[in-house]
Amino acid sequence: MSAAITEPLAATGLDPAVREKLLKVGSANVANVLLKRGFRNVMMLGVAPLSADQPQLVGPAYTLRFIPAREDLDSMANYGRGDNKHRRAIEECPAGSVLVIDAGGSLAASSMGDMMAARLKYRGVSGVVTDGGYRDAAAIRGTGLPCYQVRNAPPATPIALHPVALDEPVGCAGVAVYPGDVIVGDSDGVVVIPWHLATEVADEALDAVEYEEFAARHIANGRSIFGLFPATPQSRAEYDEWVAAGRPEVES
Amino acid sequence: MSAAITEPLAATGLDPAVREKLLKVGSANVANVLLKRGFRNVMMLGVAPLSADQPQLVGPAYTLRFIPAREDLDSMANYGRGDNKHRRAIEECPAGSVLVIDAGGSLAASSMGDMMAARLKYRGVSGVVTDGGYRDAAAIRGTGLPCYQVRNAPPATPIALHPVALDEPVGCAGVAVYPGDVIVGDSDGVVVIPWHLATEVADEALDAVEYEEFAARHIANGRSIFGLFPATPQSRAEYDEWVAAGRPEVES
Amino acid sequence: MSAAITEPLAATGLDPAVREKLLKVGSANVANVLLKRGFRNVMMLGVAPLSADQPQLVGPAYTLRFIPAREDLDSMANYGRGDNKHRRAIEECPAGSVLVIDAGGSLAASSMGDMMAARLKYRGVSGVVTDGGYRDAAAIRGTGLPCYQVRNAPPATPIALHPVALDEPVGCAGVAVYPGDVIVGDSDGVVVIPWHLATEVADEALDAVEYEEFAARHIANGRSIFGLFPATPQSRAEYDEWVAAGRPEVES
Amino acid sequence: MSAAITEPLAATGLDPAVREKLLKVGSANVANVLLKRGFRNVMMLGVAPLSADQPQLVGPAYTLRFIPAREDLDSMANYGRGDNKHRRAIEECPAGSVLVIDAGGSLAASSMGDMMAARLKYRGVSGVVTDGGYRDAAAIRGTGLPCYQVRNAPPATPIALHPVALDEPVGCAGVAVYPGDVIVGDSDGVVVIPWHLATEVADEALDAVEYEEFAARHIANGRSIFGLFPATPQSRAEYDEWVAAGRPEVES
Amino acid sequence: MSAAITEPLAATGLDPAVREKLLKVGSANVANVLLKRGFRNVMMLGVAPLSADQPQLVGPAYTLRFIPAREDLDSMANYGRGDNKHRRAIEECPAGSVLVIDAGGSLAASSMGDMMAARLKYRGVSGVVTDGGYRDAAAIRGTGLPCYQVRNAPPATPIALHPVALDEPVGCAGVAVYPGDVIVGDSDGVVVIPWHLATEVADEALDAVEYEEFAARHIANGRSIFGLFPATPQSRAEYDEWVAAGRPEVES
Amino acid sequence: MSAAITEPLAATGLDPAVREKLLKVGSANVANVLLKRGFRNVMMLGVAPLSADQPQLVGPAYTLRFIPAREDLDSMANYGRGDNKHRRAIEECPAGSVLVIDAGGSLAASSMGDMMAARLKYRGVSGVVTDGGYRDAAAIRGTGLPCYQVRNAPPATPIALHPVALDEPVGCAGVAVYPGDVIVGDSDGVVVIPWHLATEVADEALDAVEYEEFAARHIANGRSIFGLFPATPQSRAEYDEWVAAGRPEVES
Repeated sequence: MSAAITEPLAATGLDPAVREKLLKVGSANVANVLLKRGFRNVMMLGVAPLSADQPQLVGPAYTLRFIPAREDLDSMANYGRGDNKHRRAIEECPAGSVLVIDAGGSLAASSMGDMMAARLKYRGVSGVVTDGGYRDAAAIRGTGLPCYQVRNAPPATPIALHPVALDEPVGCAGVAVYPGDVIVGDSDGVVVIPWHLATEVADEALDAVEYEEFAARHIANGRSIFGLFPATPQSRAEYDEWVAAGRPEVES
Repeated sequence: MSAAITEPLAATGLDPAVREKLLKVGSANVANVLLKRGFRNVMMLGVAPLSADQPQLVGPAYTLRFIPAREDLDSMANYGRGDNKHRRAIEECPAGSVLVIDAGGSLAASSMGDMMAARLKYRGVSGVVTDGGYRDAAAIRGTGLPCYQVRNAPPATPIALHPVALDEPVGCAGVAVYPGDVIVGDSDGVVVIPWHLATEVADEALDAVEYEEFAARHIANGRSIFGLFPATPQSRAEYDEWVAAGRPEVES
Repeated sequence: MSAAITEPLAATGLDPAVREKLLKVGSANVANVLLKRGFRNVMMLGVAPLSADQPQLVGPAYTLRFIPAREDLDSMANYGRGDNKHRRAIEECPAGSVLVIDAGGSLAASSMGDMMAARLKYRGVSGVVTDGGYRDAAAIRGTGLPCYQVRNAPPATPIALHPVALDEPVGCAGVAVYPGDVIVGDSDGVVVIPWHLATEVADEALDAVEYEEFAARHIANGRSIFGLFPATPQSRAEYDEWVAAGRPEVES
Repeated sequence: MSAAITEPLAATGLDPAVREKLLKVGSANVANVLLKRGFRNVMMLGVAPLSADQPQLVGPAYTLRFIPAREDLDSMANYGRGDNKHRRAIEECPAGSVLVIDAGGSLAASSMGDMMAARLKYRGVSGVVTDGGYRDAAAIRGTGLPCYQVRNAPPATPIALHPVALDEPVGCAGVAVYPGDVIVGDSDGVVVIPWHLATEVADEALDAVEYEEFAARHIANGRSIFGLFPATPQSRAEYDEWVAAGRPEVES
Repeated sequence: MSAAITEPLAATGLDPAVREKLLKVGSANVANVLLKRGFRNVMMLGVAPLSADQPQLVGPAYTLRFIPAREDLDSMANYGRGDNKHRRAIEECPAGSVLVIDAGGSLAASSMGDMMAARLKYRGVSGVVTDGGYRDAAAIRGTGLPCYQVRNAPPATPIALHPVALDEPVGCAGVAVYPGDVIVGDSDGVVVIPWHLATEVADEALDAVEYEEFAARHIANGRSIFGLFPATPQSRAEYDEWVAAGRPEVES
Repeated sequence: MSAAITEPLAATGLDPAVREKLLKVGSANVANVLLKRGFRNVMMLGVAPLSADQPQLVGPAYTLRFIPAREDLDSMANYGRGDNKHRRAIEECPAGSVLVIDAGGSLAASSMGDMMAARLKYRGVSGVVTDGGYRDAAAIRGTGLPCYQVRNAPPATPIALHPVALDEPVGCAGVAVYPGDVIVGDSDGVVVIPWHLATEVADEALDAVEYEEFAARHIANGRSIFGLFPATPQSRAEYDEWVAAGRPEVES
């Protein structure tokens, strides 16, 4: 692999067909597909959806990196300046992208509040992920924007966090995120797909989801998971026939 | 007490009358009854229900013990083998029992996914408890199986966990679980009853619940908790009269 | 500031007008106002509402301090005594006040159960906050009393906690709480207002909330957060005009 | 047991003979003796000696309780006041006593620095225990005062800690400490003896130490620990004979 | 790989030549060699030597598994019984082996005390590793037995731990340990070598150590680590020449 | 304060006179001086010296930022490449500077090993600080280079860490570090001085150390800390006289 991948990349648009597929798969399905390619560390551990019924999150990553605050630099006055990168992230994260915030795991101050979430929603940003937490969580839920965090962190951002850089490689909840990597979030949590693998991973994950639908019907009819899940060559052949036959009712 | 208790026991069926009683009591009631017998460490701390509205969990424990995975043994290929104990646990846990998983507290990989939960549900297993977490949590909720975990853990099981033994004594979330011990789970969490005490604990816990119903009516009428809760000999006598009188309305 | 503030104060009644205002503001708004006065550590971190839909919590603090239990002092027999301070707290916490429990962060035993919550509700206490956890959480939710905890902690109180003092200064979830300080809890968490600042903080926080309503309307119409949020002198002037004009529809 | 024990007690002098015995026993021996009396939670977990070669610590507890700091009360100016209880603790802790500091487990600011340690040493205080940490650790080691902490915590005390009370019951590293309770610290850590048990615990612990000396000689000669350690009635009889015989060489 | 490896194996003697080599290499060297074979999780994280100057630890693993204690089974009386597996481990761990204790990470009670350590030393056991801690740490240091732990844990074992099985696969500090696996401990910590790889890993790790000696001499003379460390084909050829030349002084 | 400070700065040389002063003061003294200027968060919490007797660490910060590793980018092959920033940091950190490593708090892989430490020592780098840990700790101690870490972390760096950037603002153990900020490390830990304040902080900290010497002599003679420590205007005047008098013996 070329070393160029370690350099920040402009967030690229996500192929609508790939997005469509990723909207239908689970984060755990994606993680399984990546594991087959040797990627073992792709799920952000400890990061949970803000709302139980928020929509699936899919989009390329646009990153914001925080470091700890310092009292002279992170006054409320400085926070209001026009070049503050926290607010620049809100205005500059591309529509369709996911804002991924590296808060260094800090739960001592807010990674985002409801005004920012409302603005992101309006601008068409897909959602937000932080390894810290938010303030005004109830109002953020009200926006409908799918957001992920560790737990609520209501204190004002400048108390503990300084926004230092936009759209560069970061770590978030123990996972590397390069700009443009594809983020998928569901009720289980958030998975990161290296951007150059997004298309093939989407295909393979969707295939796994469809096979699981087949397996689920058999399980509902009383079949053992041995020889069925995980799939075997025989069960795959059986699945292919079933698909070819138009996915008929499974009989017990 | 005989030393024989430290040896693995075949999970025994739970007396339906005992089960019926335990379906009506809280885990905290059970813990209180056990405390009176000197058992101080019976609640699994940090383990929560997967779903806010899942049914009460009652049943004898059938255990699965994980140790950390090793890359050569825990390949996806080996995971698919017919003698994999993770999947054997799913097929062999007796109907009516509770599958108790000792994941060593690992949240780095999944203790169970939705296909396994669906199979357990079909087989009549009562529920699942782990000191780790699950993948496909939304779909597991969909099965209606009462499940307990620490938090979501979506990565594939072989990334971090190796199934090493079935139905032997284990630790789970800080509590000893011997095969056949009776598990009771409600919205507060999970408590473990040593199997030889299940009958008397069920009786005593149900009695406490009924007394609490009596106390609750008085509290709702404005009575102080002093002399009422915890019960005193006087308030117990009053309760007995009230029961004898057919549990009439409590007057203020 | 006089040193007298470090001495325990009788919980004082909260001015109904102040309470009314604080019922309308977020805990994060309050924290922001306090930050402007130099108070950086006012939100209890890691403390969450017991119920997603419980009412806003506002009231002066009445405190209970626990220390670790000792087997000879914290028998169930002693727990039932008339001078037990855990139960005295339940009977003596003034109506309108908030019972703030310093459990030393212990999750090994319960800070409160449902009988106690029912009694507090009857007595008109505003709610309960602990840096530990509760038992009978479902039943406590049933009372409607707004309660905050770290996570469920169902074991019996005397297993790990000894009630040692009432209504003295305590720490709770990393924040100092002096008797009479004003507690505000919403879905984000719990904030503590030094009692002598309650009136001015309530005014200023309500003002911030109203400004946010103005800002939210503009954001919903597509306006950038720059120059709008946080407020600038210009946007404040615009807001004042808007208020003077009777808060008309915001046009895009 | 009388409830009076729950009230703060003036630190009482420790019988010199008891102190002499406790200087010869290990904290783990003391814990074992207390376990036989039903006390399971007497060792401060996670608290370690500041210096590997500091002398054994023995003395009655004199306590200092901290709560979290508040910026208006815990200015450096207020810290310098004559009624500051942190400094009062340094001047008022009786000679021979152990200063036990309840820092609520905070490692964000110092429980003590070297000037305070030097003053305590001069005043004849036996040593210091905190569930937080110290600043100037190297200089404190230089004083020779036996001190225990969790880890270094160099920031100035008022950054995070407010001294709120002297010589009242506190929790320290998960253990209840009542004024006058006897503290024993060695290289393993710190154990707390309820004051009314100090004499009998000292006797019994010293006896255990002497039996261990007997057992160690046999182990060094190749004897199995079965039937020797823990002691059996037979091995105790053998020990008694050995003592009666003047503790002769143990032959293999 | 055969599934047979997942079954418990009798601890086998370690080839003296392999032991000799492993006594000369660092745990980090071993981990590097294993990483080349795809093993990423072989170092026990958080486990440290009890004594800064204890000898290198090498030997095949003999395991003891603890689960949480239960008050009726883990009385002091039961602890003294002849079939107690904690003491059986002390008497049955083969000479030359390393006793590896799975304490489930519990620091609430002791994994071993000084009497047990003295007996192990006498019996020729190589050392002890636990993911919990010890009591009587100073006296254990006195035996000279190399021991590893997380931190001191002086309370009596039966307070929190029940010995449930000997010489079966366990997890210890996050690493899988199968009986007979080769343990190597130095001042960095403890690494586990799958038993069937011990010979080749020892050879390769020793080779790496010798190359590092070569590299260290060059670094001491001012050479850059680029092209030297990690080794390149060129630097390996240079090393081979240097070895062939009798390892002469390295000139700057 | 100008916003320019938030931009990376080339590490600037440290005035030798300032360095000389900072070699004589404690990290806690520095923290106190910074607190007077409003900086509350300057000590890296949880970071300890690798060796108890390593020299004082003083120098401007040169930073290395890690993010989590990804298997395709962080192969051992890529680790050996000439443009690897981990090794570039070792070769490019200026003589006299301190290498400050932001490992995101990861203890799963090594921030540095002994070959790298030897090279840094040769190159005249002042020392190393990480919020992770090292491998080959004993050999690093042997170099004499003052190093700070959280705890040993021997696994190979590419297992968990990817070097992503050099000499930009980072967070380390909860403290903001801008390139050129002055690092001071002693046995208590590590403090960070904003670069533009180094001169005045050094002066004021040295003054505090000298006053403490005065106070220590009085304490050794039995004087109370009240009116002496912290200093009062009176005690400062007394100190000034004592200095003017040539620092004579302090009489009791």
